[in-house]
This record gives sequence, structure tokens and C-alpha cells, in this order.
Amino acid sequence: MTLASSTSSGKVPAVLQMVAKAEGIDPQKLAHLVTHGKVVVPYNAIHAPKPIGIGEGLRVKVNANIGTSPDYVNPDEEVKKAKTALKYGADTIMDLSIGGDIDQIRRTLLGTVDIPLGTVPIYQAAIDAIRRGKAIVDMSEDDMFNAIERQAKDGVDFMTVHCGVTREGVERLKRQGRIMDVVSRGGAFLTAWMVHHGKENPLYSGYDQLLDIAERYDITLSLGDGLRPGCIADASDRAQIQELVVLGELVKRARERGVQAMVEGPGHIPLDQIKTNVEIEKTVCNNAPFYVLGPIATDIAPGYDHIVGAIGGALAAMHGADFLCYLTPSEHLALPTIEDVKLGVVASKIAAHAADIARDRRWADADVGMASARGSADWEGQFEHALYPEIAQEYRKRRKPMDPKTCSMCGDLCALRIIKEYLR
Amino acid sequence: MTLASSTSSGKVPAVLQMVAKAEGIDPQKLAHLVTHGKVVVPYNAIHAPKPIGIGEGLRVKVNANIGTSPDYVNPDEEVKKAKTALKYGADTIMDLSIGGDIDQIRRTLLGTVDIPLGTVPIYQAAIDAIRRGKAIVDMSEDDMFNAIERQAKDGVDFMTVHCGVTREGVERLKRQGRIMDVVSRGGAFLTAWMVHHGKENPLYSGYDQLLDIAERYDITLSLGDGLRPGCIADASDRAQIQELVVLGELVKRARERGVQAMVEGPGHIPLDQIKTNVEIEKTVCNNAPFYVLGPIATDIAPGYDHIVGAIGGALAAMHGADFLCYLTPSEHLALPTIEDVKLGVVASKIAAHAADIARDRRWADADVGMASARGSADWEGQFEHALYPEIAQEYRKRRKPMDPKTCSMCGDLCALRIIKEYLR
Repeated sequence: MTLASSTSSGKVPAVLQMVAKAEGIDPQKLAHLVTHGKVVVPYNAIHAPKPIGIGEGLRVKVNANIGTSPDYVNPDEEVKKAKTALKYGADTIMDLSIGGDIDQIRRTLLGTVDIPLGTVPIYQAAIDAIRRGKAIVDMSEDDMFNAIERQAKDGVDFMTVHCGVTREGVERLKRQGRIMDVVSRGGAFLTAWMVHHGKENPLYSGYDQLLDIAERYDITLSLGDGLRPGCIADASDRAQIQELVVLGELVKRARERGVQAMVEGPGHIPLDQIKTNVEIEKTVCNNAPFYVLGPIATDIAPGYDHIVGAIGGALAAMHGADFLCYLTPSEHLALPTIEDVKLGVVASKIAAHAADIARDRRWADADVGMASARGSADWEGQFEHALYPEIAQEYRKRRKPMDPKTCSMCGDLCALRIIKEYLR
Repeated sequence: MTLASSTSSGKVPAVLQMVAKAEGIDPQKLAHLVTHGKVVVPYNAIHAPKPIGIGEGLRVKVNANIGTSPDYVNPDEEVKKAKTALKYGADTIMDLSIGGDIDQIRRTLLGTVDIPLGTVPIYQAAIDAIRRGKAIVDMSEDDMFNAIERQAKDGVDFMTVHCGVTREGVERLKRQGRIMDVVSRGGAFLTAWMVHHGKENPLYSGYDQLLDIAERYDITLSLGDGLRPGCIADASDRAQIQELVVLGELVKRARERGVQAMVEGPGHIPLDQIKTNVEIEKTVCNNAPFYVLGPIATDIAPGYDHIVGAIGGALAAMHGADFLCYLTPSEHLALPTIEDVKLGVVASKIAAHAADIARDRRWADADVGMASARGSADWEGQFEHALYPEIAQEYRKRRKPMDPKTCSMCGDLCALRIIKEYLR
């Protein structure tokens, strides 16, 4: 019995009790949200991670992507990236490895990471085809489902499956035209496969088979946006929205089987379209949790896409997006380093918290604590309430003030000190 | 004759011609916006900077604050900070020096910086009192106006003047209560002065005298928000809005004298209140350009306030804020370093650009260029369209791909490459 189907009886399983406690909400209410698919709790019992909830009424969550590439295969570094992501507060990690011994890397990460771990199984199906001396498009339908099942057996908690990339969507994409046709790796693999074989996407036509596996291992589906826009100019176009409509239907079918499903979203979107993107996902996909990549609010800041993503992510989450996939400074340029992972997680966590307090002031306790500590020049109190105390201490130490009650910006001309002397 | 009064005749002075050209708008239209105070062009003929326009219909601008503190006085470093701010694209610089030979530092910066330079003259008036062995509150009314005139004579282009901190506002603040009463340095100096003397703020009661000086030297006033909230919990409260109402009246009086005026805004505001803050400034202050500090969307990320400010700034600017004051990673902790200035300018420029393209797609040409370059794996083209090419190149070089047409993230599994092969 899956987690989602177990809640419909009115009982609240232990996993959800833990989530309810962490979020400070009533367990029955949480169970109701899970039953109706407004919240997902990715939890494969084989991995048994610390359960986290994603969706309506809960804190905004942050995912960090790690993994090898064909050019850089260093499993130890990927483990270090995972630990760095954990240290700085990632709520989930996705292993997107496409280089080296993919099975081994995934299994090592599952043994290392105590939070939900996600993957994109189509990568492995494609790479296996290449390693057999064939092309990506030579992967068979069985290869695709076998990769999914193999990864589920290993304990993967949630999986991106690009089931919404359909022949209909690709035809619409071609009719419409774009600057950047397909920028999703999984979306590109499947589009190429469909075009090459003249057949429907097996993850769409065989969606029931996929749901069988997801139900058996209680995998949470993350319905990928294979046709997401890759630049501002392509944002919110017909190809993107066509796919979203299909994903909405697939959410419904997953729920009917007791399979949890969330929906992935873009991607490159200008700020003025972010609210609309969130709202249309919530209506078309019946309030399925929305998992956005960024969004990336401008195309022209490579090297600083963690900041670009934080801007877009904060805005999306304020309007109801539930789950932010981080971006690192290396996005669009190179495979990220450990330091990139840190910066990516930090920027997204800040965005998530800014959105949390905008959505519900009950999450602003630390902000109030910080304000009180600042008001009384209590520096220890300030570090205590800081999201990243060691970084704040570092900056303060680098340029110490002469008077330890002040900071080196204002010294004894501190506004708070002057006001305390005169106002009250 | 001031710039604003010269436009009412229908003529377009050379300074405005330059701004119109840079912004790609009709010079007559720009002149109309300046006449009606919707755009300001801070320009003191003694300094004669490269003119820039701030306000409706123009690109969002970024200011970088630099300056010595009582604890760290290194004029050479401040010059380097100014040059760094220029290099990374600051549109204006404010010298907030409060340590060392303030006159000398300001004059050096005016000689260095070819963009508009702003100051907060009340700092100098207060420091002069301290240096005479007195307290801040012992500065005389003449000291305040003399500091303003002295700095105007030096060529300062725009000045923050906290004219809206009135006895009425301070009484409302006391009645209401706050976690952090006054966090503006200038606001604190003037509040202390008013409480100590039991008199009205001279910059309010003597506003006509201030306008005389501003008119004589054609100084653009930046009406400071001395009672801006210092934390999320104090945001958008009665004290803040009371001051804004007064500033609206002062904008009107400035315009009647042909003096350009913009209005400063917070500060610490949760994301859900940012739109409202911009809208209320625009109504109450008759569409005066809005100059915001951040806004800072959470209190708990010291060490990363440049990111916090970029999030708030992008949202504010999307909704109509015109001018973003940067924040550096040292905000709330220490006097910024040169590297901090770089990070602060970069983060704010990204926010400004993201807002620009959301407000008007005519600013998205570089984004379209970037998208085309990405689509065709034209790396040189990508660097050409990047906001900071050298940073992007650095990230790419750090982890070179095996195939120079790809990047080390995906290698030959590049979505764009696969799609190009199969889709068209």
C-alpha cells in the first residue's frame, strides 16, 4: 500500500506524523492534503529517508542537483557535493549522473544521503544504449522501464519522468517555432526517440506500466517538463502549456492509483510571467505541488545564475510554487564544483525563506529574533538567528569594530545606539 | 535655471538629449517626464557627470554606497571601491564617508567618478559637532544647511535629506512601538536632535531654505526615509507611511521650485508587501521616482544580503521602483571591502535587468542574443551577450569540456545538439 493510499482511510502513518511535526501542522490535515495530492512526501521504504513534505501549507523546499558528467567522473567529489548540500540545508538531492558507473554512484549516494534522493532514469537507459555501441534513440521501451525499476529497487525516492512530451506536443512545438527547441536532456532524448521511430513517447503510451512500478515501490513521480522554455523569448509558449495540460491529466491518473505526483516547471521565465505560470499549473494540474527550476529571470547572467534563480524562485514560491530546484554559478557553463553547490543551496534557501515568511508569518520567528538581537546590539543573538552563522561571523571578524558592541560600518555613529539614548 | 525648469519651455537641453539617446526614447517625451517630476536626472554642472535618468519608462538604475567609517579610514580603498562599482556597472555612487577627512574624500571621489555622485550632508554636520568636542545633537541648524551648501559647491549631484522625519512622525512612532525604532543614520541624528531640543526637524521647518540651495546648485533631492523599517516585523507600519505622506508634500513643493526630487524607500519588507509599497509611493508622492534600499526580504541572511536585496529589488523594480540601492555581503556586519562592492553591484544589476525585461521587452535584446548563441553552441556569442563575460569565461575554463562545442555539464549528451540532429 502506498503512502497516499494509506492516508485515505483516515489513519496517519508514522512518516506523515513526522512531517506534520516538522511543519507544525495538524497530522490529520496533512494526511488530507496528501490524499488529495496537494502535498507529496517522497519516501521509498527501501531508502527510508528523513521524510519531508512538499506542497500547500508547508515550508518551501529546496533541491540540489549533483552528479557526474561524461567529461568529469569523480564519485568522491559527488559524495562531497551531497554532504555540502546537506550541510547548507538542501531538503532533497537529485543524482543526475551521466558519467562513470551510474549504478554504483547512485547506490553510494543513497547510502550517504538521509534526505529524499531523486533521479532521472531515462539518462541511464540512454547511456546504456550508447555503451552498447548504439545511439540514444536505440534504447528500447523495455530499457526505459527497466531503468526505472532498477532505480526504484535501489531505493530512489522520487523520479523525474518526462511523460508529457508527446507527439502532439512536439508537432505543436514544430509548428510554433522556438529559438531553443528543447533544452531538457530527458525531453531531448525522448523527442529524438519519437521522431526517429515515428512512435509515441513510451512513458506516455506506457504510463500505466510506469504507474505499476511507481505503485509497487511507492515512488513519487516528478512529472518532467521536457518542453520547458530555454530562454526568456520562448517562455510560456504553446508548446510549454500544451505539455502542462497533458501533465495535468497524468497527475489525475497517478492519484487514481495512489501514486504521488508533482509537476516540474520552468526554467527561463521573465518576472512578469512567473505568477501566471504558478497559477496555471495549480489549476491545470489540480493543485499538484509545483517544482520549478529557478525560474531563471534573465538569460544574460551566466556565472551568477544562482542569484538569477533566487530572484525567480522567491517570486514563484511567494505565488505558490512549492519546491525550488537550485541553480549554481556554473549553470549553462560547466559541471558545478563543491563550492558551486554551496552557493546554489544558500541562494535557494534564502529565496525559499523569503517566500515562506511572505506566505505565512508563522515562519518569521527567526526574523523577529534577529530584529530583537540587532535592536539590542546582541551579536551572539544575531549569529544564533542567522541562516548561516559562520558566514556572518566571518564577515564581522574580517573587519572588527573598535567597540565590540558596534560594527565597523557605523562605529559609535550607530543609529540604534543614538536612538536608544535619546528617544525613550 | 534648473534642469527641471528649463524643460517646461518645451526645449530639450543637451543633458536630456544624452539621456534620451541612452534610453532610446523621444527627447520631447523625456523632457515632459522631467517637467512633471516622473524622471529625475541628477546633474550638478560643477561636477558635470555623464547624465543618467531615473524614473518612469527608463531602465532601472543601481546605486553603490561607498565611504569610510570611524573605524576604517582608507581613502585609497574608497577610490578603488568607486572604480570597482563603475567597472561592474553602477549607475550612481553615494559617498557615505563618516571617518577621516570627509571633505577631501568627497572631492577626490568627485574627481574620480564620472557618473552622478550622491551624499548625505547631515553626516558631516553631525561629525563636525563631535569633532568640536560636542555631541551630535549640538549641531546647529546653520551647521546642517552649511554642510548641504558646502557639498553642493563641491559638485555633488544628488543628496539624501531626511526632511520627512517630523515631530508628528516621531510621536506616532513612539505611540505605535517598534522592535527597531530608527535604523537610518540620518533619521537617528535628526530624531535625537528633535527630542533633545524639543524642536521641529530643521530640514522640514527650513525646507524652503534647503530648496534655495538645491535650486541654486541644481541639486536633485533624494528625500530620505529616516523612519524606514529595520526589520520585517516593523515593515509598512504607520510611522513609515506617515513619513511617506510628508515626503509626498515635500515632492510637490520641490517641483514648484523647479527642484528635482526622488523618494527613498525601505529597507526591510516581506515580499508580499513590496508591490503595495511601490504603489503607495507612486500615489502619495505623485509618481516621483522611487529609490529603494534592497528591499531586504528577510532579516536572517547576514553575509548574503546582496542576494536578499537582489530578490527584493527585482520585485520592487518590476512593480515600478526606479532606482535600486545595492546591498553588499557585509551589510549589517561590517564596512564592505572592494570585493563586497563588486558582489553588491553585480547582484543589483542582475535584479535591475530582470525587472527591465519584465517591464519592457525592448530591453531583452541581449537575452535574445544569448538564446540564439546558446542554441547554436556559439560560445563566443554567449560571452558577448553576457552581463559579465569574464566571469562566465572563468567558470567555463575552470572545467573545460572535452569537445569545445559542448560544456562539461552534459558533454555530448547536450539536449540542443541531440534536438538539432533529430527534430528539424
